[in-house]
Amino acid sequence: MRVLGIDPGTRLTGYGCIDSALDSLVSPALVEGGVIRLVRGKDTPSLAARLSELERDVSELIDRVRPELIGIESMFTNPRHPGTIIPMAHARGVILLVAQRSGAELVEVPPAEVKRSIAGSGSAKKDQMQASVRRLLGLSATPKPADVADALAIAICVQRRTATQRMKSGAN
Amino acid sequence: MRVLGIDPGTRLTGYGCIDSALDSLVSPALVEGGVIRLVRGKDTPSLAARLSELERDVSELIDRVRPELIGIESMFTNPRHPGTIIPMAHARGVILLVAQRSGAELVEVPPAEVKRSIAGSGSAKKDQMQASVRRLLGLSATPKPADVADALAIAICVQRRTATQRMKSGAN
Repeated sequence: MRVLGIDPGTRLTGYGCIDSALDSLVSPALVEGGVIRLVRGKDTPSLAARLSELERDVSELIDRVRPELIGIESMFTNPRHPGTIIPMAHARGVILLVAQRSGAELVEVPPAEVKRSIAGSGSAKKDQMQASVRRLLGLSATPKPADVADALAIAICVQRRTATQRMKSGAN
Repeated sequence: MRVLGIDPGTRLTGYGCIDSALDSLVSPALVEGGVIRLVRGKDTPSLAARLSELERDVSELIDRVRPELIGIESMFTNPRHPGTIIPMAHARGVILLVAQRSGAELVEVPPAEVKRSIAGSGSAKKDQMQASVRRLLGLSATPKPADVADALAIAICVQRRTATQRMKSGAN
């Protein structure tokens, strides 16, 4: 099962792709991880132009890694910083659109579920999450920037959730 | 000059299209107005599926009316209701993407500027706005639902702003 996790941000959208056995909870393997930058240099184009670039980059990414599942965090309905949340929601709208178009199964998970799944606690700190991602994927270093580790955590969480659901439903 | 105004909402996206002389401030004429519904009946599809429908519907609309300018309101960075603003920002991201793709010139205007332009005051009430839109377009009734009148107000505001700018720059 190939899973792509996407972590949309206002400037950086992190992504992480993993492979794992379809029918088990054994450790997944890293396929690739990286970031898509929404702001490029000083000549910042309009939001609409940046969303077009994001659409193109996410489409290319999905075409390249061909995930069966795409995971993305659900958003807080009462964010602490509504000002930064608005551009993020614009980007997330475009990402959901591209994911839907790809035909992959789209899974939205609450941030606390990702933390609980990866680090054992819904209130796990950033460095605990990064250490867990590193350990779970058997990496020699923590993926940088943090957006990549976040996206990989989403991918692992979605892989586990789906594997568990499929085992329970006997559809393995 | 053909202008399409779009008013993205969490359930309804209103649109209104007007025609006017390129080089003057004379009254514009209504081309068409309507709404795109994001929630359809009880079988509410996922947000991603609804965004796909929105992309298709807005693309069809732009292909049909072929606007030179597309106007859309800018969003508050500190909204009073952040919970409703998140799905709206998702929808707005998709609309900006489709508008950008169309090649039309995209104009974002603050809500207060639309109110000032149409009803003479940045704090104009909804019924004042609707009455002004009706009068400015010479309509026998107020466009319903209110989302259509809002979108037409955006279109008229953007048309005026652009016509004024072009006259000032001598590019008429």
